[in-house]
Amino acid sequence: MIKAVLLDIAGVLYDSGKPIAGALEAVQRLQRRPVAVRFVTNTSRQSPPQVAIQLETMGFSVGPKQLFTAPGAVVAYLGDRGLSCYSLVHPNLDELFRPFQSTSPDAVVVADAGDRFDYSHLNKAFQYLMQDASLIAIGDNRYFRKDGELVLDAGPFIHALSYAAQKEPVVIGKPSETFFDIVLNSVPCSPAEALMIGDDVIADCEGALRTGLQACLVRTGKYQPGDESRCGLPGLLCETNLDHALKAFGI
Amino acid sequence: MIKAVLLDIAGVLYDSGKPIAGALEAVQRLQRRPVAVRFVTNTSRQSPPQVAIQLETMGFSVGPKQLFTAPGAVVAYLGDRGLSCYSLVHPNLDELFRPFQSTSPDAVVVADAGDRFDYSHLNKAFQYLMQDASLIAIGDNRYFRKDGELVLDAGPFIHALSYAAQKEPVVIGKPSETFFDIVLNSVPCSPAEALMIGDDVIADCEGALRTGLQACLVRTGKYQPGDESRCGLPGLLCETNLDHALKAFGI
Repeated sequence: MIKAVLLDIAGVLYDSGKPIAGALEAVQRLQRRPVAVRFVTNTSRQSPPQVAIQLETMGFSVGPKQLFTAPGAVVAYLGDRGLSCYSLVHPNLDELFRPFQSTSPDAVVVADAGDRFDYSHLNKAFQYLMQDASLIAIGDNRYFRKDGELVLDAGPFIHALSYAAQKEPVVIGKPSETFFDIVLNSVPCSPAEALMIGDDVIADCEGALRTGLQACLVRTGKYQPGDESRCGLPGLLCETNLDHALKAFGI
Repeated sequence: MIKAVLLDIAGVLYDSGKPIAGALEAVQRLQRRPVAVRFVTNTSRQSPPQVAIQLETMGFSVGPKQLFTAPGAVVAYLGDRGLSCYSLVHPNLDELFRPFQSTSPDAVVVADAGDRFDYSHLNKAFQYLMQDASLIAIGDNRYFRKDGELVLDAGPFIHALSYAAQKEPVVIGKPSETFFDIVLNSVPCSPAEALMIGDDVIADCEGALRTGLQACLVRTGKYQPGDESRCGLPGLLCETNLDHALKAFGI
């Protein structure tokens, strides 16, 4: 009996700026059921409000406490522990991290900072790490496709800083258990009663299974044939799309 | 019986822009003996001619075929194999790599590029790696001290690109055997008849010992007490400075 459904966003709800066929109706059906719904994403080039507005513009209804983003999880992580930070992030996230900024930070937070990944910003992050700050990574993805080109994601820069300062990063965001735990803390059920639906077999599905959730991979978005066989844990279901995934669980 | 001596430069011959006490005389004494002398350095913010001029200005005499730099070794590596490259290097090295430049390069060469380590240059290097170029690294150092601050060296950026493109780098420069082999090919003796003198226990001494040379660590430059115990191979000698190191080998 599923009591909570966690939905990945890009590649599950929409693709190339438009809702995936059937996704709007499937989410509406889900939201009429007595099931907690959470939207969960690693994106770090948009602030949480920007993500919500984008979804609302496409016709999805996102409640005020239904959206969990990796940057938002890092803010919660810093807040819970009373940590200050130096944030090497996209300008869209500056406002989010402003309350935590310090010139003697407890942590260096690294997300997909885009053009801010330059020698000057990376040296500053490195110097804080050498002065005892810990390294917090928003995701660990290698690259993504933008305007037809492959471009570097946050992962390579996190590896660079980790090697330079000889510090292991705390990775917050999917597939980390920390991230799933934060989302699970907001729903009134056990991990085994929660279902993650995503198009990334590692970040979405393997991460969820490792945390004790159920998981369903969908064949939309970035899915590539054979992805389901790359999951390192048993119990993964694979369905055509979000609509079929929900139906497979009786929703 | 030593027939060739390889001298590291910074920290062995000079420090903070000035010859180390006794180093000028020791090199002169060495150069009067029937021993091949080679100056070997990983520096990649200066071209080989700039390194030679700096040494000559301080009073050292550097013959035309006595200087081996890591960037020079990469040029030889590319030339021997007929490889083209995209070079992410300091502007001082542009002229050196100009003859090898190509828009469909066989290799991406990464050295300490300083301010050129930005998102645009790193993406370009990454895209060439994804298009089948190999990754050649000039050294793998984590960081160095500049104007009183620790700043990132080439190593972290090489790790970033290696992780992003999932390609192991070919590291040319000390401590790689490739580098020592190139230097040894220029001297008329076996590895066991050659001696490396340096202030870096790993890059200079362990690398030399692994290639079959003899090695002597000096307690000048970046040497820290206890460094000699970090050498992973037996046979390392440790002396106060260059003068004492040479005398220990009867020179």
